[in-house]
Amino acid sequence: MLVDGVHYRTVWLEGRTVRMIDQTLLPFRFAIHDANDHGETARCIRDMVVRGAGAIGAAGGFGVAQAALEGPGDGFDAYVEAGARTLADTRPTARNLFYAVDRVLAAVRAARRGGASVDVARQAAVAEAEAVARQDTADCIAIGELGAALIRDGMRILTHCNAGWLAFSDWGTALAPLYRARRDGKRFSVLADETRPRLQGARLSAWELMNEGIDVRVIPDNAAGWLMRRGEVDLVIVGSDRIAANGDVANKVGTYEKAVCARANGVPFYVAAPLSTFDAAAATGDDIPIEERDEAEVLEAIGPDADGAMRTVRLAAPGAHARNPSFDVTPADLVTGVICERGILLPSELKGAAAARLPDRRG
Amino acid sequence: MLVDGVHYRTVWLEGRTVRMIDQTLLPFRFAIHDANDHGETARCIRDMVVRGAGAIGAAGGFGVAQAALEGPGDGFDAYVEAGARTLADTRPTARNLFYAVDRVLAAVRAARRGGASVDVARQAAVAEAEAVARQDTADCIAIGELGAALIRDGMRILTHCNAGWLAFSDWGTALAPLYRARRDGKRFSVLADETRPRLQGARLSAWELMNEGIDVRVIPDNAAGWLMRRGEVDLVIVGSDRIAANGDVANKVGTYEKAVCARANGVPFYVAAPLSTFDAAAATGDDIPIEERDEAEVLEAIGPDADGAMRTVRLAAPGAHARNPSFDVTPADLVTGVICERGILLPSELKGAAAARLPDRRG
Repeated sequence: MLVDGVHYRTVWLEGRTVRMIDQTLLPFRFAIHDANDHGETARCIRDMVVRGAGAIGAAGGFGVAQAALEGPGDGFDAYVEAGARTLADTRPTARNLFYAVDRVLAAVRAARRGGASVDVARQAAVAEAEAVARQDTADCIAIGELGAALIRDGMRILTHCNAGWLAFSDWGTALAPLYRARRDGKRFSVLADETRPRLQGARLSAWELMNEGIDVRVIPDNAAGWLMRRGEVDLVIVGSDRIAANGDVANKVGTYEKAVCARANGVPFYVAAPLSTFDAAAATGDDIPIEERDEAEVLEAIGPDADGAMRTVRLAAPGAHARNPSFDVTPADLVTGVICERGILLPSELKGAAAARLPDRRG
Repeated sequence: MLVDGVHYRTVWLEGRTVRMIDQTLLPFRFAIHDANDHGETARCIRDMVVRGAGAIGAAGGFGVAQAALEGPGDGFDAYVEAGARTLADTRPTARNLFYAVDRVLAAVRAARRGGASVDVARQAAVAEAEAVARQDTADCIAIGELGAALIRDGMRILTHCNAGWLAFSDWGTALAPLYRARRDGKRFSVLADETRPRLQGARLSAWELMNEGIDVRVIPDNAAGWLMRRGEVDLVIVGSDRIAANGDVANKVGTYEKAVCARANGVPFYVAAPLSTFDAAAATGDDIPIEERDEAEVLEAIGPDADGAMRTVRLAAPGAHARNPSFDVTPADLVTGVICERGILLPSELKGAAAARLPDRRG
């Protein structure tokens, strides 16, 4: 999408460098972070310099390509395998990360099994990583077009966290229908849950939506249910980090609360996600690991002071400790529909749609 | 309750001065703020130097007493009436504020109607304000004793916002049963919703609970529903700012979401509140005004930096705006029971209990 008139993707490969918009600085400063080796790319995923389901997928894929470019002629295969493990071990919940790492690793393995030289295997890795990122963008554009049909003039749409273009290679999932609808001339407004503890709604979604000229108001996460009850929300669209075989949806913590409140108030609740988010190996949401991050994310906040200097302030009582589960699981029966690149499906229809798509070339 | 071994009430009257624990500084600094006239007391209520249903009630009552002590011999009655209006106009949602202001004003009016001098009316105002605060403490102690019966060893109890002793004259409502149970030797743990935007859970409830030696963990508000779904919450207890005639409960924004999630997961959801919170004039929750506070509370956070200097940092994207409804209404049918000074009642039983208590001497 455009930033000050220039088109950016969230993360991309240039030579041996993975370049990414630094999401720890946004929306207060726009800067590109360069990860010069796959170890640094892994650190950037873990520390959320790049975050969001599809974006960490693309970064993971590029990271495996980086490992292939770095790998010595002697011991190349073991180096790439180890690099892929390092990249996959950064964050446990989002399916897209494993999907992308597996795809690029599979391309390397397939080339080598076919007798390819290290150089040819490197080219295969780069090509597959680029293909993963391009597919991610194409899926998001399709999700935008299909999802835009749900949006009517005057609607008030709630979203949680950031499943915008910063969370993918481009366009995003939950926000892509809004961008499409806005460019098609529809008028609507958005309520963005601030999304504690890391405030991706207040920071990234609000910034993205304002960039596209969309009317957005940030709300405390606590207010979402109440505004639904007051009849001030017509539609909820969220993203997903992993969808289980039965249609249960893992997404940013708080999504479950919003889904329960949407059901209690008759508000349609849509999940927007590419089929690469679908994990046939997880029978239900109980099989999806939920990341617990550092309690400091809850106990402190980082932001610019009046002079623009970034400061860390304590939020909680001195000495207090916190729990910090970063994701939750929304049971399939609370999901009105899943907007994916193949259409708007029922959660129960995803398994078939995922099986029918072009097979992954898994190793 | 005790602070470093010294017993404090949240707010009290000394001479013509309303003294209060400054809750804008807690838990980072413990200081007493002196409001030297009723106008300053009103400002302290509005700006949340003193906050919490019963505490702003007590402060409002003391403020009317202050106005009586300040009022000139000539024009005394008009001065006190105007002062009462100033105090009542500070915050719209909590019933206890109007209850206390009305009671002290009624005492002044009754004295004057009976031919009392200005001096005698002043004494009546002070006595009534003290009686309101004493009654508030007595009610909270009763709530603590009755509510403690719900708490069993090993329980994991969720609370929202701060309905502890800082929110009343002493002891509190939602937290009073925990203090009673702890002093009776029961062992349990508490999850404190941080309670955005003003973080009363992370700051005030966590501080209070740690002071009493109770095991507490702060959680993002977003995590409450998920932890209920995971079976990690046995009991929810919250306070209330106003209860309508039909049993609908107004409380800090987010309470409604927790109640909906508690019902969805079969977790008992209790409201703890004295009968002074009950408002027979509000037929349902729709008749309770919901305060919308300044958007800056959502867009910024204030807290100490590593050196202890209080700093304001921006949380949201530059240029973003916010909604900030401070309360919500939980429908009576989601409330398992109301712990009041007369017992643990069904919401439908409150009307009778409130009518049966000693009549208010309303003006």
